[in-house]
Amino acid sequence: MKVAVLMGSASDKAKMAPAVEMLEQLGIEAVEEVMSAHRTPEIVSGFASQARGLGFGAIICGAGMAAHLAGAVAARTTLPVIGVPLSGSALSGVDSLNATVQMPKGFPVATVAIDGAANAALLAAEIFAVHDPAVAERLDAYRAEFANR
Amino acid sequence: MKVAVLMGSASDKAKMAPAVEMLEQLGIEAVEEVMSAHRTPEIVSGFASQARGLGFGAIICGAGMAAHLAGAVAARTTLPVIGVPLSGSALSGVDSLNATVQMPKGFPVATVAIDGAANAALLAAEIFAVHDPAVAERLDAYRAEFANR
Amino acid sequence: MKVAVLMGSASDKAKMAPAVEMLEQLGIEAVEEVMSAHRTPEIVSGFASQARGLGFGAIICGAGMAAHLAGAVAARTTLPVIGVPLSGSALSGVDSLNATVQMPKGFPVATVAIDGAANAALLAAEIFAVHDPAVAERLDAYRAEFANR
Amino acid sequence: MKVAVLMGSASDKAKMAPAVEMLEQLGIEAVEEVMSAHRTPEIVSGFASQARGLGFGAIICGAGMAAHLAGAVAARTTLPVIGVPLSGSALSGVDSLNATVQMPKGFPVATVAIDGAANAALLAAEIFAVHDPAVAERLDAYRAEFANR
Amino acid sequence: MKVAVLMGSASDKAKMAPAVEMLEQLGIEAVEEVMSAHRTPEIVSGFASQARGLGFGAIICGAGMAAHLAGAVAARTTLPVIGVPLSGSALSGVDSLNATVQMPKGFPVATVAIDGAANAALLAAEIFAVHDPAVAERLDAYRAEFANR
Amino acid sequence: MKVAVLMGSASDKAKMAPAVEMLEQLGIEAVEEVMSAHRTPEIVSGFASQARGLGFGAIICGAGMAAHLAGAVAARTTLPVIGVPLSGSALSGVDSLNATVQMPKGFPVATVAIDGAANAALLAAEIFAVHDPAVAERLDAYRAEFANR
Amino acid sequence: MKVAVLMGSASDKAKMAPAVEMLEQLGIEAVEEVMSAHRTPEIVSGFASQARGLGFGAIICGAGMAAHLAGAVAARTTLPVIGVPLSGSALSGVDSLNATVQMPKGFPVATVAIDGAANAALLAAEIFAVHDPAVAERLDAYRAEFANR
Amino acid sequence: MKVAVLMGSASDKAKMAPAVEMLEQLGIEAVEEVMSAHRTPEIVSGFASQARGLGFGAIICGAGMAAHLAGAVAARTTLPVIGVPLSGSALSGVDSLNATVQMPKGFPVATVAIDGAANAALLAAEIFAVHDPAVAERLDAYRAEFANR
Repeated sequence: MKVAVLMGSASDKAKMAPAVEMLEQLGIEAVEEVMSAHRTPEIVSGFASQARGLGFGAIICGAGMAAHLAGAVAARTTLPVIGVPLSGSALSGVDSLNATVQMPKGFPVATVAIDGAANAALLAAEIFAVHDPAVAERLDAYRAEFANR
Repeated sequence: MKVAVLMGSASDKAKMAPAVEMLEQLGIEAVEEVMSAHRTPEIVSGFASQARGLGFGAIICGAGMAAHLAGAVAARTTLPVIGVPLSGSALSGVDSLNATVQMPKGFPVATVAIDGAANAALLAAEIFAVHDPAVAERLDAYRAEFANR
Repeated sequence: MKVAVLMGSASDKAKMAPAVEMLEQLGIEAVEEVMSAHRTPEIVSGFASQARGLGFGAIICGAGMAAHLAGAVAARTTLPVIGVPLSGSALSGVDSLNATVQMPKGFPVATVAIDGAANAALLAAEIFAVHDPAVAERLDAYRAEFANR
Repeated sequence: MKVAVLMGSASDKAKMAPAVEMLEQLGIEAVEEVMSAHRTPEIVSGFASQARGLGFGAIICGAGMAAHLAGAVAARTTLPVIGVPLSGSALSGVDSLNATVQMPKGFPVATVAIDGAANAALLAAEIFAVHDPAVAERLDAYRAEFANR
Repeated sequence: MKVAVLMGSASDKAKMAPAVEMLEQLGIEAVEEVMSAHRTPEIVSGFASQARGLGFGAIICGAGMAAHLAGAVAARTTLPVIGVPLSGSALSGVDSLNATVQMPKGFPVATVAIDGAANAALLAAEIFAVHDPAVAERLDAYRAEFANR
Repeated sequence: MKVAVLMGSASDKAKMAPAVEMLEQLGIEAVEEVMSAHRTPEIVSGFASQARGLGFGAIICGAGMAAHLAGAVAARTTLPVIGVPLSGSALSGVDSLNATVQMPKGFPVATVAIDGAANAALLAAEIFAVHDPAVAERLDAYRAEFANR
Repeated sequence: MKVAVLMGSASDKAKMAPAVEMLEQLGIEAVEEVMSAHRTPEIVSGFASQARGLGFGAIICGAGMAAHLAGAVAARTTLPVIGVPLSGSALSGVDSLNATVQMPKGFPVATVAIDGAANAALLAAEIFAVHDPAVAERLDAYRAEFANR
Repeated sequence: MKVAVLMGSASDKAKMAPAVEMLEQLGIEAVEEVMSAHRTPEIVSGFASQARGLGFGAIICGAGMAAHLAGAVAARTTLPVIGVPLSGSALSGVDSLNATVQMPKGFPVATVAIDGAANAALLAAEIFAVHDPAVAERLDAYRAEFANR
């Protein structure tokens, strides 16, 4: 099972790179795609609708400003959707945090910290680890590093 | 030419009613619909894509919390989209204001005040009045009432 | 596999009840417990450390003000931890949102909207549904109700 | 029909330039003027009152801090007034956003994102496109570029 | 010399009444007028331009939301203009505070607390007391009451 | 009659310099002093109590963070006290704005924009101009420059 | 050794009562006084200067809006000063929190939560308990109640 | 008696250094430790539980983002816990301020300004000075320097 790492704009790649790196470090396949709830809504709609069938187990969405990407995906799948509010606008990410986390009843987005791409990946791994002891072990190993510091 | 008054939830009707009333007062046909960017995304997508062909000249969208409705419509039409951020959540509408106004380049949403449904209707009328002197006259008459107070 | 619904105070029960109800509606066992990161930290620590072994697959944590509960749990387990920031303080939940979502690298909390207990339950169900088609079907049925409205 | 691009200060020119460029790219005549609701209120008042008669179809107003320009114009015309809150103050544009969008009943300002000058131009074009199929086509072409990316 | 107490709407009367009462208590003539920077801009413009000649020594302006009244007056007179941001909107007066206090260089508005009408009157009295020992004595007497408590 | 320009710290001199310069430009004597409501409270207390007797007609106070200087002065004089909230802290001046403007009944501080030292000086001049036609003329001349731009 | 519980206004008594009650519950003498940094600054100044000599070991200060009381006390004593920001204004206590906690270097105020009077008393007890084992024991007993719930 | 200066991350050392320096300047032994409520929760738990027995008289905790360190310590000791919210995140320390100061009843954290490490040390010294005249004298000497400026 793999994780999609979506971002609203190619300019978000640097901020979302830690998600891809963390997934790879944890032995989980990451598929990175640029698609926008506003610029390419049908691509988002199509991807979200088919994601489970395509073998994805979680979808990470990074977006800034009026960050609708995670919500647009969450509206079309019951896969866990993880939202990463991105800073960069005049409002320093308060706008994207509000637009990502304040979802209406029925359509949760699992929101992590502003620019928290690495944690989005860890959350995806934790989701996989619910049923996959190998991932759970790798998470434990990752955690153990903290304890040893 | 008519105006669509969309709202994310039937519970928003009282807050959006002033838009319908103002449009009728100004002699503009209003079509009120409940559709949600999250609950019924395909209805939103379909409506937005066909709105110009259906004779709509502007689309008013009222939504609260992570208010994606106006943005979801704006992503699929080049008709003017007017966003009404609705209060009601713990954040008193700051969340919906951010999620409505902070749109990325390419996809403007003409945002009015929090709970400003009447002004959304007036803005739609102003848009029609650009080419329709009769609407312009009715707007002038509406304005004249203020001056006489 | 079951879901823990933790809350920092017995006074949070009304706000967290929708999580328990939604889980039951989706056929998932919910275990509701009052424990506080500040009042009963060792109980939190003990529970979090043993939760996976006790058969829990996700932990929902609702707390207000300087809401540390979700973070305290996330520090001691690699199970998915879902945070529900609760309003009720002078700051209307902005404090609990900040204290829940802005977690440091390594320790994600899947944060939902302020007072979004029902969505926390749906997110837990989505996590289970990654490997459990029966839950996925129940989520699809729940979603279908929206589409039919 | 042409669009006025007003700004409160000559120092706002760089931030408002994308509006002029976008209008030109879409084949719409733009008239750029520096006038201030506070420094030159009578010029603003005179311009707003006569704008429709002078052939303007929409007025874009960019201003920072206690951004009154768009509201001062909106008070004196029923042309669509588009407000661009500008950042640059200690409050990063939250002040200008509030001062632009929170207009009282009767006097809408179509507010776009902080520093969203390009979107202001697109909104003006969308307004013209309601009755001008040529502008609508150019907007469609502009949009198509996004889809092809 | 007298003080004008302006308010943007008749509905602001209750919130501005303490200004009139305090001025009367301090033996200063108060002239209360409803005029709006948006609804009746020419009345505001005319009043502000003539206020000094009409015997006014200070102008108190109370307004809510995108509170432009004080700024519109300050743009047209060099009399001291005292701004009272009024609460009542979804943003609880943060909007009117921003729109009142964040004036550009050249056009100060002496801003008092949100809903601080009584203090606006006291500030006007302090301004008069700079040259009027009788007012200064009455202010001292008012202050002495606090000390005796 | 002269104006005191007080600041809480010597490090605020650059931010308060525009007040001194503007006063001098308008022919008003400015006396600049560093004194702090926290570091040297008795100096503040003594100065405020004696300021009217020493020939001061207004007191400008610039301070950052929990900016108490203007309030501490206002508590001990009925001269007009003008507060300049200074930015520079992590909160960008929101803290000093709140601490300066939100004064309790009885003790107004005439608050200007964050870092608005020049406007504080203009406000002092406006206060003097209430009774001094020469200052009023110089203010008119200053204003005329704006109109000619 | 006793604790002073100061409040800026008699109207704050209900919000500060939990401090007095908690101190009494912990066997610490509490002296409650109404005094204001603005209304009665010399009383505050005198009290703060003499507090250590009068046998006080900590001073709790509750105030709202531009809450200067704790800072005014902290400027005149090296006793621990505990600040309780009070809600009640339009800004719901964000103003008093900023005005209490953001103290400049040299003059700490130990700030507790908005309306957190009981915790202010507990903090005072913790300070006493550093050298007084009897108070430490009573705090341990108070804490034990939480653990038993 | 000594003071612990804890910080959530080694990267916080520069921001917490003023606490150590100030304590040394005041002749108080400081023990600096990096430990995290999330990365090394058991170390935090163990340290807090034993701190009084180890001869600590106060614990200073600096942390950023969802700053749980001070709260986690306060949950396990009745020693005075002093919280230093650290800036550095997208939210500039508003998140850590909220997460530090808004503690629930029973568990006060004596919060100082964002990045206010030096004041945290002064507060610790003030706490020691309640019973230690030598520290009180050194605090008086430190204060006297301000008065002489």
